[in-house]
Amino acid sequence: MTTATSIKTKTYAAKSADKPLELFEIERREPRAGEVLIEILFCGVCHSDIHQARNEWHNTVYPCVPGHEIVGKVTKVGADVTRFKEGDIAAVGCLVDSCRTCSACAEDLEQHCEEGPTFTYNGEDRTTKENTCGGYSQRIVVDEHFVLKVPKNLDLAATAPLLCAGITTYSPIRRFNVTVGQKVGIVGLGGLGHMGVKFAAAMGAHVAVFSRSRSKEADAKRLGAKEVVISTDDAEMQKHAGTFDFILDTVAADHDVNIYLNLLKRGGNMCLVGAPENPLNVAAFSLIFQRHNLAGSLIGGIKETQEMLDFCGEKNIVCDIELITIDQINEAYERVLKSDVKYRFVIDMKSLQ
Amino acid sequence: MTTATSIKTKTYAAKSADKPLELFEIERREPRAGEVLIEILFCGVCHSDIHQARNEWHNTVYPCVPGHEIVGKVTKVGADVTRFKEGDIAAVGCLVDSCRTCSACAEDLEQHCEEGPTFTYNGEDRTTKENTCGGYSQRIVVDEHFVLKVPKNLDLAATAPLLCAGITTYSPIRRFNVTVGQKVGIVGLGGLGHMGVKFAAAMGAHVAVFSRSRSKEADAKRLGAKEVVISTDDAEMQKHAGTFDFILDTVAADHDVNIYLNLLKRGGNMCLVGAPENPLNVAAFSLIFQRHNLAGSLIGGIKETQEMLDFCGEKNIVCDIELITIDQINEAYERVLKSDVKYRFVIDMKSLQ
Repeated sequence: MTTATSIKTKTYAAKSADKPLELFEIERREPRAGEVLIEILFCGVCHSDIHQARNEWHNTVYPCVPGHEIVGKVTKVGADVTRFKEGDIAAVGCLVDSCRTCSACAEDLEQHCEEGPTFTYNGEDRTTKENTCGGYSQRIVVDEHFVLKVPKNLDLAATAPLLCAGITTYSPIRRFNVTVGQKVGIVGLGGLGHMGVKFAAAMGAHVAVFSRSRSKEADAKRLGAKEVVISTDDAEMQKHAGTFDFILDTVAADHDVNIYLNLLKRGGNMCLVGAPENPLNVAAFSLIFQRHNLAGSLIGGIKETQEMLDFCGEKNIVCDIELITIDQINEAYERVLKSDVKYRFVIDMKSLQ
Repeated sequence: MTTATSIKTKTYAAKSADKPLELFEIERREPRAGEVLIEILFCGVCHSDIHQARNEWHNTVYPCVPGHEIVGKVTKVGADVTRFKEGDIAAVGCLVDSCRTCSACAEDLEQHCEEGPTFTYNGEDRTTKENTCGGYSQRIVVDEHFVLKVPKNLDLAATAPLLCAGITTYSPIRRFNVTVGQKVGIVGLGGLGHMGVKFAAAMGAHVAVFSRSRSKEADAKRLGAKEVVISTDDAEMQKHAGTFDFILDTVAADHDVNIYLNLLKRGGNMCLVGAPENPLNVAAFSLIFQRHNLAGSLIGGIKETQEMLDFCGEKNIVCDIELITIDQINEAYERVLKSDVKYRFVIDMKSLQ
């Protein structure tokens, strides 16, 4: 709906599941009370963007403008905005709204909002009921409660993926109390996994990366891991049996979780942040014999996302990225599907002017 | 090995995987320092007994004398025994020894002994290296550290299954902090499940039993449940979505755990104590969307087993049993396999005189 107060905005959108993303114009509203208008500088490319653009979750509303790893500059604020002013650097992640009143929202876990949170794209705006459009666009309008502050020392392009890949790994690492001296395993060394390594190492843990080959060893160590364990080598895996305090599983492809569960200490936790399409086969004995726990985690709430960004500022942590222009997005998608990226593509949104 | 100081002891034993149990004579040693000799009064019949007698875990040493839900009377004590004297009522569960020095033993979690605990039957005696023989026998000799005291007010026959079915359900209910006002689900209403209902209700929880039919409703309520939820009725299950603090899954047959995981509150725990032969299919989304945890639990340590017995004494909790004679054991096994027992068979060991 174009109104007198709407702002023509260029985006890249998927118009159907089988079409490449292409230039598409939408309208952004003028910021309402409590909202800020952000000119987007950088937007990360998350695997979820591809799932959604291609309707792999069977719920995509087209045209679909993906992107939920957003860093930009505030150019206008609505009435009553208190935390941001024109010129501020600001960030937006996977969430742009929630009910604000349920027990989850009250506990700063908006991602678990009992009415369903409003996702940054392919969500339903709580006021207008329109389909939300994400960060592959020139600008976005978001309630300040869902806008994050970016520590001044961080590179802005490399900060963008913290808004999803960062918080997705930080949240379970915090929830399961990863700390100095613990042994932590990271399954999968992609966009999520490489952040898991950085966070767990920054918290003082001895980090091991599980990999099918030694080829990732140098990179894993550069990121902060102390060792690489070859997951296909039974004898090597067996040496680590019962030694891990915590394992973060970031793999979204089908894989055997039991080989990792068996490496946990008594009472140890393994947490899934990837979501394979098919159910995991979990042997009951993998859980029973040493009272292991298998958990799941979904991004993080706004308060914890800010905490994560502040932690990154303090520890000087950002993502390892490859910067692309918006016209490279379809090629980037193909490379993401081949895990051919170290470790996250970020779109330089100047390329959409 | 028969010695001058061994005691001829009648048992019922399986001599091979495909033979019924039959009368078999073994030797029990005279109690060594720290050990007590117990004349067995009652022994519960656990599903594990059947698995082991029939070599379904592929590790049975024959002849196999099952039985790890033992209540009896102390008739002799070895040197240095301090906690028991002749004439005391005493109980023995699944464990008769452990290394006593590893971190698990130090934390009173002998069931997780890092050297492997010594199980009451089909275990390897840490001194003699002989195969341990369980409670389907006239008497047993056990180190007093692994012998439990039975509260005076409890019926002895109905106490026997507390030593496995009781502690197996009590331990996770305690570990996951089930308490007043919580909503707790019990999957499966057999030997384990009926104790889960009693314990969770005794701790003040609102207990729901999941069942495939209404036929168990009266019984479930008599045991302490507030309601029965028909697990095959999707609409009825959906009404409970997101409402359970804790679910205890006692089912050892293949079943869908996702339908229960989806009923947990955000951050809720489900714990397996049954061990289906085939891996469970766990949808990652069942864990991720509401940060659920799927855990396992294995019996309990000696200290917690005593705590459980004391709790039973205080709350006057015992198992619901059907008392049998030892010559009915093979028939009882067939009935256990058909779930045709309310809720645990207990052998009156007088029948073995």
